[in-house]
Order: sequence, then C-alpha cells, then structure tokens
Amino acid sequence: MTDQPLWTLQLGHSEVDELAARADPEAPLAGVRFAIKDNIDLAGHPTTAACPALAAKPAGASATAVRLLLEAGAVPVGKTNLDQFATGLVGTRSPYGACHSVASPAHVSGGSSSGSAVAVASGLVPLALATDTAGSGRVPAACNGIVGVKPTRGLVSTTGVLPAVADLDCVTTLTATVSAARPALAALTWADPNDPRSRPMPPRAPAAVAARMRVVAVPDMALELDPPHQEAWTAALDRLRGVAAHVVPVDVAAFLEAGRLLYEGPWLAARYAAVGGHLEPDGPHLDPTVRRIVLRGRDIAGAEVFAGLERLATLRRQTEPVWADVDALMLPTTPGHPTIAEVAADPVGVNARLGRFTTFANLLDLCAVAVPAGERADGLPFGVQFVAPAFADAPLLDLAAAWCGEPVAPPAATAGSTLLAVAGAHLSGLPLNGELLAAGGRLEFRARTAPGYRLYRLSGPGVPRPGLVRTGDGPAGGIAVEVWQVPHQAVGLLLETVPAPLGLGRIALDDGTAVVGFLAAEHGVRDARDVTAAGGWRAALGQLP
Amino acid sequence: MTDQPLWTLQLGHSEVDELAARADPEAPLAGVRFAIKDNIDLAGHPTTAACPALAAKPAGASATAVRLLLEAGAVPVGKTNLDQFATGLVGTRSPYGACHSVASPAHVSGGSSSGSAVAVASGLVPLALATDTAGSGRVPAACNGIVGVKPTRGLVSTTGVLPAVADLDCVTTLTATVSAARPALAALTWADPNDPRSRPMPPRAPAAVAARMRVVAVPDMALELDPPHQEAWTAALDRLRGVAAHVVPVDVAAFLEAGRLLYEGPWLAARYAAVGGHLEPDGPHLDPTVRRIVLRGRDIAGAEVFAGLERLATLRRQTEPVWADVDALMLPTTPGHPTIAEVAADPVGVNARLGRFTTFANLLDLCAVAVPAGERADGLPFGVQFVAPAFADAPLLDLAAAWCGEPVAPPAATAGSTLLAVAGAHLSGLPLNGELLAAGGRLEFRARTAPGYRLYRLSGPGVPRPGLVRTGDGPAGGIAVEVWQVPHQAVGLLLETVPAPLGLGRIALDDGTAVVGFLAAEHGVRDARDVTAAGGWRAALGQLP
Repeated sequence: MTDQPLWTLQLGHSEVDELAARADPEAPLAGVRFAIKDNIDLAGHPTTAACPALAAKPAGASATAVRLLLEAGAVPVGKTNLDQFATGLVGTRSPYGACHSVASPAHVSGGSSSGSAVAVASGLVPLALATDTAGSGRVPAACNGIVGVKPTRGLVSTTGVLPAVADLDCVTTLTATVSAARPALAALTWADPNDPRSRPMPPRAPAAVAARMRVVAVPDMALELDPPHQEAWTAALDRLRGVAAHVVPVDVAAFLEAGRLLYEGPWLAARYAAVGGHLEPDGPHLDPTVRRIVLRGRDIAGAEVFAGLERLATLRRQTEPVWADVDALMLPTTPGHPTIAEVAADPVGVNARLGRFTTFANLLDLCAVAVPAGERADGLPFGVQFVAPAFADAPLLDLAAAWCGEPVAPPAATAGSTLLAVAGAHLSGLPLNGELLAAGGRLEFRARTAPGYRLYRLSGPGVPRPGLVRTGDGPAGGIAVEVWQVPHQAVGLLLETVPAPLGLGRIALDDGTAVVGFLAAEHGVRDARDVTAAGGWRAALGQLP
Repeated sequence: MTDQPLWTLQLGHSEVDELAARADPEAPLAGVRFAIKDNIDLAGHPTTAACPALAAKPAGASATAVRLLLEAGAVPVGKTNLDQFATGLVGTRSPYGACHSVASPAHVSGGSSSGSAVAVASGLVPLALATDTAGSGRVPAACNGIVGVKPTRGLVSTTGVLPAVADLDCVTTLTATVSAARPALAALTWADPNDPRSRPMPPRAPAAVAARMRVVAVPDMALELDPPHQEAWTAALDRLRGVAAHVVPVDVAAFLEAGRLLYEGPWLAARYAAVGGHLEPDGPHLDPTVRRIVLRGRDIAGAEVFAGLERLATLRRQTEPVWADVDALMLPTTPGHPTIAEVAADPVGVNARLGRFTTFANLLDLCAVAVPAGERADGLPFGVQFVAPAFADAPLLDLAAAWCGEPVAPPAATAGSTLLAVAGAHLSGLPLNGELLAAGGRLEFRARTAPGYRLYRLSGPGVPRPGLVRTGDGPAGGIAVEVWQVPHQAVGLLLETVPAPLGLGRIALDDGTAVVGFLAAEHGVRDARDVTAAGGWRAALGQLP
C-alpha cells in the first residue's frame, strides 16, 4: 500500500464487487482490476482532471476506452491523480498533492499520469489507463520502472477523454509487463465512429513496416543525460546488441527539434482551446504553473499556428528516410530523474527537459513503448523507449517483449508462400516494390546478407537496378536486404520480369539462415560499377550521380 | 487572339523558340506550349502573384511543376494574370486588370487562375498551369468551358508555388479536353523530397477506390442555383444517367459546411501567414478587397485555429460513409455565373457564393475534375465537377473522359485472376475485406445484381454475414455488390473459409454480365432474417439492432 495522493476518487468496495460480479467470467480481462487517469470519463463519477472545481459533475457516460475494458471484463477501482489538465510531465502539478517515484520519496513520479503509474508500480492494480500527448504515459512509466504503451494515434478512441492537445492525445496503458498490456490493447483497439480522429488498423500494415523487427536505430550523438542516467544508457546500448540483429546509429536532431515545437511552439494554443475556459477565476483549485502555461496559449496568433504546422511538416519529412532502413528507434525515455525540490525550483525548465525524448512521437505520428531498463547506480529505475512509424504497433510490442525477456509469439508460418530476399528496386518505397504488394506480399523482416556478397549497379535501360553477387570477398557486415513473404505463384511471375543477368537463388543471411533472393550472375557484372561500399542499394542510390 | 489582360508576362519569341529547340523531340509533351499562372516560379522571370511590387525580383529556379513540364518537352510562353495572391474566385481582383469569360465580356472569367483559363479557352495555348486551393482552377474552367483537373493534394509538388493556404494548395491543369490533361498530369506526378506535403501515389489504390467508376452520387436536395444554371444542371443530371450505371442521391450538407470553414473560419490566418508580409504599406499595387480579406487573418487567435481543425475533423468523419458506397460525387462547379458588375457591387459575397461547391475538396482531402457540361440557355458555358477520395485520380479521370465522350482505355485484362462479386463481410471496410487485400485483390468496380436476388442475415457465430440468394422475386434495383479482381489461387483459399450455406457461383449483374460470387443455398436461409429492403449489406448493418 502507499500513502501517496494517487487517487482523486476510489470506488467503494461494494461498487467494485458489483462491477466484478457483472463481468463475463469468460471475457479476456475478466476480473482484472484497473485504475483510470482522472481525465478519462467513468460513468457516474466526476472527471476532475485534477481540478477540484470539476468534481461536482458526474460524467454521463464512460469514455469509449473505459467501456471497452468493462466489456472485456475488467473492473475499475478508482480515478487517479495527474498533473492538472494533463499539462506536465512531473506529477507535482496537482491540488490533490504531488506524487513521487515508488523508488524514492524525494524524486518525482513523473506525469502527467502520476497516480496511474504509482498505482501499477505499487502493485495496487495490474493495469491503469493513462494518456500520453507529450510523454504523459511514458515518462511516469520510466520513473516507476513499468511498461507504458502509447499506441499509434487514433487506434484507441479518445471519446470521453478531456483533451489536452486534441490532435495528439493518445490513451495509453500502464502495466508491469508487456504481456499484461497485450490483452488490454487488444480490447482497446477499436474504430470509434464517434471519434473524428479514430483510425482503424489498416487491413495490411504499411509497406515499410516489417512483421518482425530486427534493425534498431540509436542516436549517433551524445544525449546530455544526467550522469547516473548516462551510465544506465550505456548499459542499455550493450543490452540492445543482444536483442536486435543490427544496431544502426542515426541522426535524431530533426526528431528532437520537432519535439521542442510542442512546448515552445503554437500547440499551447490548442491547450488553451481545450481547457482555457476552466482558468478563470483563479483560485486554489488551479495549479499556478499549469494556469500560467496554458494562459500563454491565449496570445498565440492563428498565423503562428500555421507557421508551426509548416515547420512540423518540414521536420517530419526530414525524419522519414530513417524508417526506410530501420524498424525502430531506441532512446532513453527521459534524460534524467529530477527531485521534487528541483522541480519546485524551476517548474517549467525541469519539466521541459524531462520530455526531451518523448514529445516528438505524437507530432510525428509514431507509436512508442516505454520499458524498464534496469536500475541506475543510485537504485532509481531507468527506462528506454522503442519508437516506430504509425501502425507498427504489433511488431513494436514484440520488440519490447524481447527486450524485457518476455515471450514473443513465433512468426506464423504462411502456407503457400516463400521468403524472398530483395536487395534492389523491389525494396520498400523503391519503384518495383508495388509488384510485391500487388502479389499480396508483406515485409517479414529487414536483414543483411552473410559476409561475402558484393553489390553492383547494372547498366541497362529502365529502372536502375543492382546486382547482388556472392564473390566471397564482400564486407563482413554484408549487404542490406529486405525479406518479403510472397505467395509461391508470385515468385514465378517475378522471375519472368527479371532481365539477365539477374535470377533467383539462395542467399545466406546474417543469422545463418538462407532464403531465396535476387542474385546476379558474376559474368553479368564485369563492367558494372561496384557500389558495395554503400552497404545497400538505397544508400547507393543516394550516392550515385 | 484576345485583348484581355490575361498575361502578366509574355516570353519573347526568341526565348520561346530557344526553349522549343532545346526540348527533346521524343519527349511526351514535345513542343506543347503552356502558360503558367503567375504564382508559380519560372526561372529568370519574376513571380508577381498579380502584385506589381513583386515584379522586380526574378525567380532563381523554376517550380518543380514547371521543371517537370520542361523535362517532358513542353515550352512555356508566359505568366498569367490571377486574383492577387490567388485570393479570389472571380478574376477581377488584380492591378493588371480584370479578365472576363471567353463567352461574354460582361461576365467574370472566374479565378483565381483567370489568365490561365482564358489562355486555354481562347486557344492561345493547349495547356496551362493553375492552382486550386478553394476552387481557383475549377471555377475558371467552368466559367470558360474547359477542363480543370485538381489532383489529390501532394501528388504534384508545390515547391516554387507562392502559398495561399499552404496545406491546401494544389497545382492544377487547365486544358480543352481530358485527353490533353493526361500526359501533363503524368509528367507532373512526382514525389518531391523537397516538398514536405508531397505524397507519392500509393503502389496500391486505397481499398475502397474502384478501378472503374460506375456509381455516382448527386445531392439529394435543391442547390439554390441561378435559374439558367438550374436548367443546365437538370440537363446534366439526365446526361449522367447515360454515363454512370447508378446515380445515388446523398446528403451533401456536411461537405458544404466543411467548405464554408475555408472562408468563414480560421484558414484566413494561413493566408495571412503566407502573404501578410506583402500587405504593408498599402498602395495601388495591392487589390483593396484582397488586402482587406487577408488582413482579417491577422486577428484570428491560435485557439480558433485549433477549434476550426476540430470542427473540420468532425465534418470529415461525417462525410466519409458516402465513399463506402459510391465512386464519385457530381456537383455543379459553381452555383451561377456572375457579371463583373455584380462582383463590383458585392465583392466578398458574390465571391464566396461562387465557391460553394468547390471549397470543400481540399479541406476534405478529395480529388476533383471540372468538366464542361454544355451551355446555358443564354449561351454561357456550364460546368460540373466529379469529386472522389484521395488517390482516386486515375479512375476519376476516366469517369470525366466518359462524361466528355472522350476515349477511355479499356480495363486491363489481368492474367491469372478472377472477377469475384462480394456482397457481405468482404465488402471494403468490413471485417473480412482484409482477406481480399492480403490475397493481392483490388476493387474493380461497384455494381448491383440483376433483379431477382434477395439478401438474408445468416445466424451463426463470428462476423455477421449475409446470404445472397437468387429467389427470382427480388427487387428490380438488385442488391449492392463489389466486384474484386483476385488471383485464381485466392478464390480457392476463400472458398475454404466459407461456412455453409455459403458457396461460390455465378451472379448476374446489372449490366447483363455475370461474374463469380458468394451465394447462399436457399435451404440455408429459411429461418434467416430477410434484409433485402436495405438494398445491400452495408445498409442492412446500419439498420440491424
């Protein structure tokens, strides 16, 4: 148990028992107790968003997310404290009191989903609903050593959630493990006709999303972490080499710059649009920092909003090439773990720094999972997050489970299909990729060849194409390939379209297995340009004149 | 020839001849002369946007759209007049002078792409580049009896186009025929890495976009057209019955309300963000109406912008169900054809009315083609537009060509595949549609069965499914089906998943042909509920409890 101010409302035992008795015992979450962040409606109880002035009016209906958990048999036990109006990442901005990390009374719980995170980390409930606009689900997960899953925007309805920045708000799960999150997310994923931002999971994953994630990017620069955080991050990078087949350094400057737009840019006007009406008159029911921040949104001009959207579009475009070659990006969830005293001394600055690695995800339409990554030398929990493009939620969850040492379902064998390695114009996003998609193919995983292969740019008309040749003297790191699952029949069709010197044969992969793939006959590349040094065809295309 | 003020700049004969000599004679647009709306950059010449103060500075590079036409062999002849800063739909808001319709010196040319439309309609050039944010390409096309193609946002780069509302601006073609637009659009469609809003045509069309458009929606209400327009519209509705297999009345109120947001709502702040810097100091180089309108954008608060985006998201969601059952929507391009004097008397009101049917397209992410639809009784041209979801550009162009009596390529026969009619859970957007997509299927066309079929809701566990039965006594209008092109192999797989009493057999369609499709055995529906009156499974699902 805990004496933290983590609840804004606890349901009575009789109400909880009655709800539990009503649940279908065969339902997937039958009897699972859960906490609800108090910016999400539970029918019959007020939604305060940590503003006691809102405590008088009970919600008429439950939020769609709550309703779906109830239908899956889960049982709510109460509403949890938060940074007021979900504006904060610290957990201290609430008239209901400040929470602290379960690991240290001096250190913040993180927020804004402070009560939900503490409730799960303390073992009071196995599941809590949170929200995550700038990191409000992932940051408290990291500060308390638990798992926070922020799905792709729109997969989980926000009907019945008090908006912070309505275009970006995501309902998020907090659990002790990835495995515990899975059935909750399955229940929560539903296309809500009443939520204009609801988006169904597409029947086919986007072309560049691999069913199995093996290539993980990490920042190619130092991250200005607190020293104990830096030490834990270095250990996490080591651990990643045991989880991912390939770790690729990438430039994350544009990601972080996009994230800064959320607090420094015009999105404050969206918060003002959402909750500005609750800020007058002032009084002890309003957190002074939250009020000051949101009121700044009143003075932002419409033209600034459009200029900000313009800047975001440019930054998003700059980040997109990363996703052509990697499955996910790993970052620390936070740059440090401040004390409650440090937050009090600089409430805005410390808060903004805490969100440095989380704020970009929703602006750039990415999904993310925050997972525990051991402890720092001082015993505080350390967390990392895996981030991936929209609708990569399922394989991202598997990657997070692999990180946590939790079970991952083996890939489903697909009858009547072949694993086919492509290294050239059939790569996702390149001109012939549509042939794989039209044949019903899907990207199974990204890989590299075993050592001993070289890549040549073939001459000839039409789409530029490379030839992959096993020369025996290629680089140790191999050549980048994508392995697609395609129907048998399509393999024959593809072979008919392939000009000499290309053909299909066995290609040895980095993991010791071999799959069918496009190879060039050695005699056909005698006069071709050797582009092996680029490491793969996409990189070679970027270097060719 | 014409003495209208349609040019802001004409290239000298020697420059045009030199450009023509440089073009590859084998290129798809070799030697085709084209005009460029003067908000689009042509290297070495100023881009005035009809503001003479901008005439001093030549553009350093051509806009991407211009460069692509040059690479395709086309030859620019000049820059054309427009409503200043592309702010207007009338063609009179320019210090370079007002244009008029080629059919009447008293009536407006439409705008903002006034000069480009007049240049094409006068026969001076076979092709002109325009832009269309609120209707600036389609409205002058209608006012001058020509074709205006507004592609899906992002398919044609706007790099080098002076923004009006940057998120919504579309480069547009103006031509005398649909056939003349095709090679220009083929040249212009290119994913521009330098344009953050550029979107490539997806390798597979969205699931609900049919390769052949046969079902066309029209408004289910009177449209408050000018009387001669109403007469021409009534004739167009008759003509449509000869072009579309099915004409379906739909509620267009949410479309029109979304369109009103563009002028009445916060998007004026985007215009101010784009061109506000050119509005001071005032002077004869500024059109007083344009200046007054755009300055209103300065006073729009950021919070209003987010509230407007919220309202738009809700309206967009309301319009989406339309696209589940129809291929395209036909509307008049304009509600009337005002005189220059009428515009002078009420410059803002007459302009806003002119855009009533065009402003929603870009806000709702739709593509549109404006085509001539005969003449009004008074001899003025009348035009209609066909509107469809994003990335439906190719089949929409075929529909427009069919309307114009121009050639449409026959559907490509696909070896190794079958046309399969689905009437239930495999319809696009319904739970089993993913099976068709995963098998590499694509929606070929929407249709209805021949008379004599009835539809039943089957009992049984799992996804709700209907049974289609040829009873001989079904409604004359048939039952709604989608005809998918699927690989032979997939037909066998689907058959394995189908529970009794369902099976595959021949289904007679509205056009007298027959295709393979899902049918139920009559004995299997004896106790099932008859939902034939709904006309189709999607409608039946909406009515079931």
